[in-house]
Amino acid sequence: MADFLKTIEEAADRVTVALDALLPRANGPETPLLSAMRYAALGPGKRIRPFLAIECGRLVGAEERGLLRCASAIECIHAYSLVHDDLPCMDDDDLRRGRPTVHKAYDEATAVLAGDGLLTLAFEIMAHPDTHASAARRCELVTRLSAAAGARGMVGGQMIDMAAPAEQWDISIVTRMQRMKTGALIGFAAEAGAILAGADAGVRRTLEGFAHDLGLAFQITDDLLDATGSASETGKSTGKDAGQGKATFVTILGEAEARDQARRLAAQAKDHLDPFGERANILREAVDYVLTRRS
Amino acid sequence: MADFLKTIEEAADRVTVALDALLPRANGPETPLLSAMRYAALGPGKRIRPFLAIECGRLVGAEERGLLRCASAIECIHAYSLVHDDLPCMDDDDLRRGRPTVHKAYDEATAVLAGDGLLTLAFEIMAHPDTHASAARRCELVTRLSAAAGARGMVGGQMIDMAAPAEQWDISIVTRMQRMKTGALIGFAAEAGAILAGADAGVRRTLEGFAHDLGLAFQITDDLLDATGSASETGKSTGKDAGQGKATFVTILGEAEARDQARRLAAQAKDHLDPFGERANILREAVDYVLTRRS
Repeated sequence: MADFLKTIEEAADRVTVALDALLPRANGPETPLLSAMRYAALGPGKRIRPFLAIECGRLVGAEERGLLRCASAIECIHAYSLVHDDLPCMDDDDLRRGRPTVHKAYDEATAVLAGDGLLTLAFEIMAHPDTHASAARRCELVTRLSAAAGARGMVGGQMIDMAAPAEQWDISIVTRMQRMKTGALIGFAAEAGAILAGADAGVRRTLEGFAHDLGLAFQITDDLLDATGSASETGKSTGKDAGQGKATFVTILGEAEARDQARRLAAQAKDHLDPFGERANILREAVDYVLTRRS
Repeated sequence: MADFLKTIEEAADRVTVALDALLPRANGPETPLLSAMRYAALGPGKRIRPFLAIECGRLVGAEERGLLRCASAIECIHAYSLVHDDLPCMDDDDLRRGRPTVHKAYDEATAVLAGDGLLTLAFEIMAHPDTHASAARRCELVTRLSAAAGARGMVGGQMIDMAAPAEQWDISIVTRMQRMKTGALIGFAAEAGAILAGADAGVRRTLEGFAHDLGLAFQITDDLLDATGSASETGKSTGKDAGQGKATFVTILGEAEARDQARRLAAQAKDHLDPFGERANILREAVDYVLTRRS
């Protein structure tokens, strides 16, 4: 696990450096916006999605510079979604990654705009020639990322989370919501390198299967942390789901069954990696990390 | 002018039909989101930006199907920006195009998400093979649109509008703000067809010059309408700028000088069209329309 932690930290550092160069510098009268975008995207974070993009991409032979761009675009999308989800009209969170959320550190208008700016920037990063892939592949990255982020992906998942009536919350809607809200971007992270490298459909399906199971295991673990963790450990408000009477994997399945289910999904995720043999060991460690993390 | 009004209405109808097909149907637990996206994008509107995209594109020989996709993506971006700008934490508007704004017709969370969904969809529309252009040109459309919409474009312009301190508001900051907030997307609309058609750099510069002058004339007219028009005419709240003590072209230049300046810019915009001869007559009429509109 020590090697793994070093690898994920290295990936996180590389992505932070890349994002620092990609984000506009804070100057001019729009400074609060640019500063808030940097606050949201460059702050502490595990960078699990960029790590997955980089390591899945390496597994299929994608080129490093392109992978780093993809990883940076994915982190922009992730950061934007956190900023908007934390807004008072949404989850109304004051704490994120151990710091004040963007609308607390700045204000609501700046938070809405910083999210918009990060979302927009992600597509520019992806489509730009510096992504070092053919234009056809860059176009495919844009359309797939847009699908993962949009109304049938993350945005739609957040809508379900906000608005689905209490009587509809069963295991099927929680699963659907999480597949859209969390799973779609994790799936794209696993798939991006395969698009970059022009991997065949079989390889892409394998990585999609891996990402699907890993994404659900990730979310169940998140629900467990929300139910059982502390804010000082997780760096964000905990116990919120229960406080709001929200159904989660934990409230529906119970803690023990949720933990079993996460373990089953993690094992399944590893099974998908069989065709890659030992070369996928780092991803197997990532599965363990996702399952056992405390934040 | 009668022919012109018929042409712009035809363009508006075609774009509305295209958007209706491109926007996801409202079903599933995410229905409020999809319904709000349709409400925002398919409601009444002059569709000036899509019209400009289509007519500038025709002028340089761009293909019709691609133009309609570009026009639809541009309208998604415009609609998203209105939804977010109208939010309580931003301009706090209740009325838009004669109807309740999205956060009034739905709620704030749905309005934030509907804007996010429309912004994301625009890039998917642009990058998709159905846009009937080479992947290289689709990538260029995505990067240019992203630049026009992002932190150094519309989002940055809105930030300046919200946050620049009162003592900084002179003619230079108002011009900078409006070039970013309004001018950038009008500029992209004028340029998109040239990218689609692979027009040479000279043609693109000509259209950029046209769009720049038209965009400023458009905004000065908007400020005049806000200062002198009524809500029943404009379909949105008026007198807001003055009520908030905001500097506009009208408060800085005075009404008479602002009107003169709009006329000068309109004449300049037409001058840019000289190389196209009579084929650009519809765009000359568009300039007159922008200058004399009452809403």
